[in-house]
Amino acid sequence: MSGQWGKKIKYSIFGESHGRGIGITIDGLPAGTKLDMDFINNEMQRRAPGKNEFSTTRREGDKVEILSGYFNGYTTGTPLCAVIFNENQNSVDYDKLKDLARPGHADFTGKVKYSGFNDYRGGGHFSGRITAPLVFAGAVARQILFHKGIQIGSHVLSIENVFDNYFDAVNLKNQFLIDILNKDFPVIDDVKGKEMKSIILKAKEESDSVGGIIEAAILNVPCGLGEPFFDSIESNLAQLLFSVPAVKGVEFGSGFDITKLRGSKANDLPYMNKGSVATKTNNNGGINGGISNGMPIVFRVAMKPTPSIAKIQSTIDMDTFENSEVSITGRHDPCIVLRALPVIEACAAMSILDFI
Amino acid sequence: MSGQWGKKIKYSIFGESHGRGIGITIDGLPAGTKLDMDFINNEMQRRAPGKNEFSTTRREGDKVEILSGYFNGYTTGTPLCAVIFNENQNSVDYDKLKDLARPGHADFTGKVKYSGFNDYRGGGHFSGRITAPLVFAGAVARQILFHKGIQIGSHVLSIENVFDNYFDAVNLKNQFLIDILNKDFPVIDDVKGKEMKSIILKAKEESDSVGGIIEAAILNVPCGLGEPFFDSIESNLAQLLFSVPAVKGVEFGSGFDITKLRGSKANDLPYMNKGSVATKTNNNGGINGGISNGMPIVFRVAMKPTPSIAKIQSTIDMDTFENSEVSITGRHDPCIVLRALPVIEACAAMSILDFI
Amino acid sequence: MSGQWGKKIKYSIFGESHGRGIGITIDGLPAGTKLDMDFINNEMQRRAPGKNEFSTTRREGDKVEILSGYFNGYTTGTPLCAVIFNENQNSVDYDKLKDLARPGHADFTGKVKYSGFNDYRGGGHFSGRITAPLVFAGAVARQILFHKGIQIGSHVLSIENVFDNYFDAVNLKNQFLIDILNKDFPVIDDVKGKEMKSIILKAKEESDSVGGIIEAAILNVPCGLGEPFFDSIESNLAQLLFSVPAVKGVEFGSGFDITKLRGSKANDLPYMNKGSVATKTNNNGGINGGISNGMPIVFRVAMKPTPSIAKIQSTIDMDTFENSEVSITGRHDPCIVLRALPVIEACAAMSILDFI
Amino acid sequence: MSGQWGKKIKYSIFGESHGRGIGITIDGLPAGTKLDMDFINNEMQRRAPGKNEFSTTRREGDKVEILSGYFNGYTTGTPLCAVIFNENQNSVDYDKLKDLARPGHADFTGKVKYSGFNDYRGGGHFSGRITAPLVFAGAVARQILFHKGIQIGSHVLSIENVFDNYFDAVNLKNQFLIDILNKDFPVIDDVKGKEMKSIILKAKEESDSVGGIIEAAILNVPCGLGEPFFDSIESNLAQLLFSVPAVKGVEFGSGFDITKLRGSKANDLPYMNKGSVATKTNNNGGINGGISNGMPIVFRVAMKPTPSIAKIQSTIDMDTFENSEVSITGRHDPCIVLRALPVIEACAAMSILDFI
Repeated sequence: MSGQWGKKIKYSIFGESHGRGIGITIDGLPAGTKLDMDFINNEMQRRAPGKNEFSTTRREGDKVEILSGYFNGYTTGTPLCAVIFNENQNSVDYDKLKDLARPGHADFTGKVKYSGFNDYRGGGHFSGRITAPLVFAGAVARQILFHKGIQIGSHVLSIENVFDNYFDAVNLKNQFLIDILNKDFPVIDDVKGKEMKSIILKAKEESDSVGGIIEAAILNVPCGLGEPFFDSIESNLAQLLFSVPAVKGVEFGSGFDITKLRGSKANDLPYMNKGSVATKTNNNGGINGGISNGMPIVFRVAMKPTPSIAKIQSTIDMDTFENSEVSITGRHDPCIVLRALPVIEACAAMSILDFI
Repeated sequence: MSGQWGKKIKYSIFGESHGRGIGITIDGLPAGTKLDMDFINNEMQRRAPGKNEFSTTRREGDKVEILSGYFNGYTTGTPLCAVIFNENQNSVDYDKLKDLARPGHADFTGKVKYSGFNDYRGGGHFSGRITAPLVFAGAVARQILFHKGIQIGSHVLSIENVFDNYFDAVNLKNQFLIDILNKDFPVIDDVKGKEMKSIILKAKEESDSVGGIIEAAILNVPCGLGEPFFDSIESNLAQLLFSVPAVKGVEFGSGFDITKLRGSKANDLPYMNKGSVATKTNNNGGINGGISNGMPIVFRVAMKPTPSIAKIQSTIDMDTFENSEVSITGRHDPCIVLRALPVIEACAAMSILDFI
Repeated sequence: MSGQWGKKIKYSIFGESHGRGIGITIDGLPAGTKLDMDFINNEMQRRAPGKNEFSTTRREGDKVEILSGYFNGYTTGTPLCAVIFNENQNSVDYDKLKDLARPGHADFTGKVKYSGFNDYRGGGHFSGRITAPLVFAGAVARQILFHKGIQIGSHVLSIENVFDNYFDAVNLKNQFLIDILNKDFPVIDDVKGKEMKSIILKAKEESDSVGGIIEAAILNVPCGLGEPFFDSIESNLAQLLFSVPAVKGVEFGSGFDITKLRGSKANDLPYMNKGSVATKTNNNGGINGGISNGMPIVFRVAMKPTPSIAKIQSTIDMDTFENSEVSITGRHDPCIVLRALPVIEACAAMSILDFI
Repeated sequence: MSGQWGKKIKYSIFGESHGRGIGITIDGLPAGTKLDMDFINNEMQRRAPGKNEFSTTRREGDKVEILSGYFNGYTTGTPLCAVIFNENQNSVDYDKLKDLARPGHADFTGKVKYSGFNDYRGGGHFSGRITAPLVFAGAVARQILFHKGIQIGSHVLSIENVFDNYFDAVNLKNQFLIDILNKDFPVIDDVKGKEMKSIILKAKEESDSVGGIIEAAILNVPCGLGEPFFDSIESNLAQLLFSVPAVKGVEFGSGFDITKLRGSKANDLPYMNKGSVATKTNNNGGINGGISNGMPIVFRVAMKPTPSIAKIQSTIDMDTFENSEVSITGRHDPCIVLRALPVIEACAAMSILDFI
């Protein structure tokens, strides 16, 4: 099985890209949470395709319909099921590709795992489209966190070799995150953003795709959340992040670069800062021993380039088991990083809420 | 709660560094598995302290005693509980430090989380010592995997800025892993290994510590293991890896570097290789859509420098909430990376076994 | 949280009686299971209201719509979500009752638990209507079990004080179960069935209701299923059965009556029966130490009389916290036992499938 | 797998009757809970064998040793592992019986389930002895509940056909439970208790055994605990109760007898009682819709007669698969009901604590 996550709140996801609908059931939400549907729809739109030249021209409303657990504008406390009915699927595109394993996709592994019974159209259950219900769940979680003062934000840290500035992991403030969030192309340094855009458009022109790194932060998490071992904040959040298609790496604080520091530099020294405990640096990304220490929680996620490209690629025919070729001509994103920002933030929200 | 992991097989961990004992209960092992206790003890010794100049001089037998689930040399199929009774603790060392938050440790976060009731001696439940039961569990899991032809190995990829060669993720073979495993200092390129040793000893001399990256591989995993979403191989394994103290980053395949490739380069092209499906490159680390594709599963883990250093560091007194200083004079590892190799391999074994 | 059950297969239920829809997500079904939709719809109809004079005149189609996990007539192996959209709700009936705690219902406990945010209409998430998705899930499970030769059946053992014959727990056969299942009023002794009908109709006339006992059996379960302790067959199945509204007692084999036997009578003596192991009696209901022993698994479930009755009852007003009175004048079942038969069988199917 | 239970607090049980030790790991206990070891040891003694003529003459100290999660007299909040090391096993008794399936025991089902690798001595993991760790866990849970004013008690409701008075489910008070608990033979009516004793001793003389019913109550549970469906108080508690060896039936409130009442009698009518909501009767055992309603939670458990009897019984030889005979001559309880009282209470404590 695959589709359930969470301890205090349990999420159960379902759906295929070209099936009847996709959705999520959220069990364990506190009763009496007022849902701001405008906020939720806005989050859905941040992820939805077809908004600009950097994403697919495929347009999907991604309109969420709540079937249960919501009454008179408030959560009831019983399982909340939300569905997005599918529309605008060109399934016929996929029937042609049915037997060709699209490189970088789960076509072959999915066919083996499910003995050929999986819904192959558009990647089926492996489609990035199934992150839409995650964004819904994250939008619900974020509203609960917001009432506790917890803010989540992210930016495009890199596209290919072009890097934005890093977050200031010590002094990051809510407003800074909000300002970035409201940008069309969410980076700290807009000059770098412009370069990134060129790179994406160039790849698109060349029937290719690019990847990038997302840097995210969670602010105002109180000290003491998380668990040692199997439910450390890192363990919990990484499990969610690695369930997002295209994620191949996750790091916290200084991440892989912390391995290049001596202990005397890597250790974040605690000190009294206006009556509360802070640390002078934040190489540990706000987490010690799996437990939040009150500093910003900062992490980065590596997202591979979209595997669907129009360029001709060699592959195998899964029916005849012969070598073959494929060109994926549908409407695809030249870069998935932008649309992934709200998904990564949703994971952060779901994870932190699981500890509160 | 913190200490339970697994779906098909459930692991329940317990213990504090200086308490009566540490251990693990493994529930769901197949009945009739013969346990090779020599292999298990050897794995325990790989992790045990006091073996050479690169680790602490603290010696612990780490002798495992099995209390249940094991009868006449075979697993019974009922919960197997294994305990390592503690010995040789200089708890008095820690009483002096009781109120000083050791930088980079969970002293402060643990105290807040557990309202001061946590066993502070030697890090208590947050101690790296609690990975010993993981190594035991991994050693059991590896024996079951071994009968299915699955091999796990790892090497020190880097210490500070010195890098070993990377694994050849396409052509990696069992014997190559075994050969490395048998080295005193497990690297591919022994010249680099020598450099790494110097760096560790230099840090030790200077009362400091260093970190590094571990690269690991799992060979001969059949295609089709893993689940989409919350139980992808990446999700499942990352959850375990991030529960190991000092791990701050995890990446699969080309990991963060895949973000610098175009889709046309990042996609691993499938082809027929002597009757079976292989890929020409392995940027995805043997995993597509969270599911194994039959190629080597390759991943890397960033381990921060040991936070316990003798150098004087500024910190806070957790009793008076005043700024203070601390020097950690006990017997500590200048570098934890070597002793972590069997722990990381244990995580890999537990994770793969969960899918079989 | 409330709505998730299962280990190998995970069920996630949702919905309120008068909300947009009710349903269930089933995660972990084997890929490639052909679903017989006629069988499923027939099971749904066995539970559906409005079929005869013994149940409510409220008619609900209970038409199941599958949103995911089902493709070209077969399960895909990914989460299968099935929804029954609600229709024909006279919610206005309930607005009048909004503040009056209907005796025997969860109105008061639900209001307290959910701080008044629960959907009170028709019992909301506490409604017996939410067992419809269970019947769907059970119908899917039964098809998988059927291919393994496992048969499940039940009969009305008693209504008020009138008792049908008990199953012959030693010699029960598939065909016997099937024959009963096909009866309009599923009892062994139709004379007793006639008496039961009179009792129900009399209660109905008198604006009252009656309860009864359901006896169920599971045949051809292989020896060796189940687990000691927390997942014994009894533990597993009882958890499901007690989640069905109105169930107040569960017993296996001779159940409460086994307490009146001496050990020498209660022990079922094993013997060789045509080459396999059988027992001469079946007081243990086919289960020893929580594990199936190959004999028929027999259990009984006590169902309380429908709490909704037209008779005037004293109660409290949950708004003013004053004593009050209530008469429940909607269309209600004078006896829920008949419609509960497929629900109890569904629980049996889900439970056994969890062990296979 | 078999041995894990709980949501908020996770219990992981292990051990075999004649292995090295038995125990339990409790994960999720609140940090800073002072443990009254005298109370715990007293609970252990209530269950321990060898105390009087109604139980086996086998004496076991049942001394609990805490390995972790307990520091300076308080729980630390990390996993608490408690072990009872085995002693005084006459394993040789069992070697003779090794191949004979003791009727009513799990010898045959266990052998099939575990392919013959189970520890057969004294029932191994199926032994009633494994309830000792449950009593420990319950004793810890009861101390936490006690601070919230929640009291748990039980009495022997019946032995064979002799019945004690039933609890007054409406007016039951703490002191009443405590008074019964302190009796050597915990019944309400000591005259009936005397009759019960005679029945037990007579069965013992005749190399036979008897069973009985335990009635238990949980007082002062606040209204609003429990969940609809799969985690109703009945579901949750029944899962635990049916994991206790020898339990074959569980009922709440009026249980099976509620099926003989009309709705107008079965419904417990709410009314205002000195400012709070109470019900005039308590046929629902303090639970509506799976949720506590503030009235006493009352339930009954059917315990079968001890299957180990000295009388010669026919059975099979599990090695030769031929019919055979067996006489179980060890030291066995003629009646397990008395020793089971603290076990049933422990289940109640663990279950209620899971909701708080």
